[in-house]
Amino acid sequence: MKVSYLGPAGTFSEEALRIAAAGCEYEAVPVATINAAVAAVESGAAERALVPFENSIEGTVRPTLDALAFEAEHVRIVGELDHRVHQALIAAAAIEPAAVELVLSHPQPIAQCARFLRSELPAAAVEAVSSTAEAVRRVLEAADRPWAALGSAAAAAAYGGTVLREDVADVADNVTRFAWLAASSEPAPADERGRAWRTTLVFDELGDDRPGALVEALAAISDRGINMTRIESRPRRSGLGAYMFFIDLEGRADRGAVAAGIEALRERAGTVRVLGSYPVGGPAPLPRREGGGRG
Amino acid sequence: MKVSYLGPAGTFSEEALRIAAAGCEYEAVPVATINAAVAAVESGAAERALVPFENSIEGTVRPTLDALAFEAEHVRIVGELDHRVHQALIAAAAIEPAAVELVLSHPQPIAQCARFLRSELPAAAVEAVSSTAEAVRRVLEAADRPWAALGSAAAAAAYGGTVLREDVADVADNVTRFAWLAASSEPAPADERGRAWRTTLVFDELGDDRPGALVEALAAISDRGINMTRIESRPRRSGLGAYMFFIDLEGRADRGAVAAGIEALRERAGTVRVLGSYPVGGPAPLPRREGGGRG
Repeated sequence: MKVSYLGPAGTFSEEALRIAAAGCEYEAVPVATINAAVAAVESGAAERALVPFENSIEGTVRPTLDALAFEAEHVRIVGELDHRVHQALIAAAAIEPAAVELVLSHPQPIAQCARFLRSELPAAAVEAVSSTAEAVRRVLEAADRPWAALGSAAAAAAYGGTVLREDVADVADNVTRFAWLAASSEPAPADERGRAWRTTLVFDELGDDRPGALVEALAAISDRGINMTRIESRPRRSGLGAYMFFIDLEGRADRGAVAAGIEALRERAGTVRVLGSYPVGGPAPLPRREGGGRG
Repeated sequence: MKVSYLGPAGTFSEEALRIAAAGCEYEAVPVATINAAVAAVESGAAERALVPFENSIEGTVRPTLDALAFEAEHVRIVGELDHRVHQALIAAAAIEPAAVELVLSHPQPIAQCARFLRSELPAAAVEAVSSTAEAVRRVLEAADRPWAALGSAAAAAAYGGTVLREDVADVADNVTRFAWLAASSEPAPADERGRAWRTTLVFDELGDDRPGALVEALAAISDRGINMTRIESRPRRSGLGAYMFFIDLEGRADRGAVAAGIEALRERAGTVRVLGSYPVGGPAPLPRREGGGRG
């Protein structure tokens, strides 16, 4: 089974996939963008994708939301995985952090480690690049200079870098929720007794100019005692002020109050799409390796 | 009067400032991040900042929301400006677009121009860098190679590049709303007859685990016939699932139904902060140059 993910080697996506799919039978397929990881499932080039969905500091991962909303009608979320993110300071060789003259990383780790950089590397310049893996690659390319990258220990291992300091983020509780994607033609994930479920929806065309239209739409859910755990507005790309709304609910889209709430929402919104119902913290939806089966 | 903005020369922020403040008396102060532009007003180093707030394709500008929420208690939004964004293809010299081998830009223009790149520059590699100005700078540094940047014509002018093609974004209606910031100790913007107003709020601590808490909070506004034009959730940075909510309303925070709605919201939320009330599409809140006064 092929699983697409945001590469290259050493990204946090690769690290999450390795941990989530330990003991499973699969072929990891690195691609250059989140959009491409989603598109691989839409086109059938991969059976699964593991993509970042939300981070506890930075919020939802917009390329994931937008790819699901605009470009992947036949893709569905079938599982989720919370993965703790550890930012490390990585150089070509063992040097004192205080001797570092330039720090490279993706803008997100730079923001997550701002206080560390100010207090421990006050003289270093900071430069944003496209990914943590790219930052590590560049630091090692310039091995004769006192440069360092912020990225994963996996990136250091992949490119042969040295971890100068582990866990340098200012906010200790740094978690990324990943989503497992599959083709919507596949059977839904199996139910398990006592397992909590989550449902992700996107809806739009509420008649945005009428006071209360959004509140009425959300009341279709909350009036039935269903807990909404997340709401995010995104542009419909038809000019400022036109939005679509992504929401997460507790429960399964095909059961009881949630099913009724979604039906009521359909009467108030132009379009409603269920992006997936999936077990919270569920197992990787991949076949187990021989001898490692679960039943 | 000093106005801080996201530099360096050639950013869309600089372009917007030049247009918005034409005929006004001010000193433009470029800084390296949006956070620094907001912080300059908070510390008194600048009297105003002009920062990007929302884009019609990419949505709200998170560093702006987060700087206002977490780091700028004494800064307020005092005006807004909608600025049309034009992406140009820029090289060191006049070459055929089809001959370009590498395209550099910020991830956002890369996304905005994806179809153009696929159809007109199918052989070019694409690489993300930290800003459009940085992309132009690098392309000119490597003037002997067939590289191009996606960025503003102002960046091409600032660094001496050649515009190969204007307006190459796939979505024609590409608008960024900028916010004018000032110290909250300053008097509120003057009222003008017939002028529409907008109010931006942030609130949190709703008791997130109770179904309907958000709907009840929003109903405090909508029940009074007040139109909410935008809602955005952002992490409170205390773990997955804890959010604060930014909303835009029509009207002034200190008048009639809006004032009553905000009072009612205060009873349902742990904290409510008015980030600003300001005239929609208002004039630049800067002194006019001599001879260019408005009265």
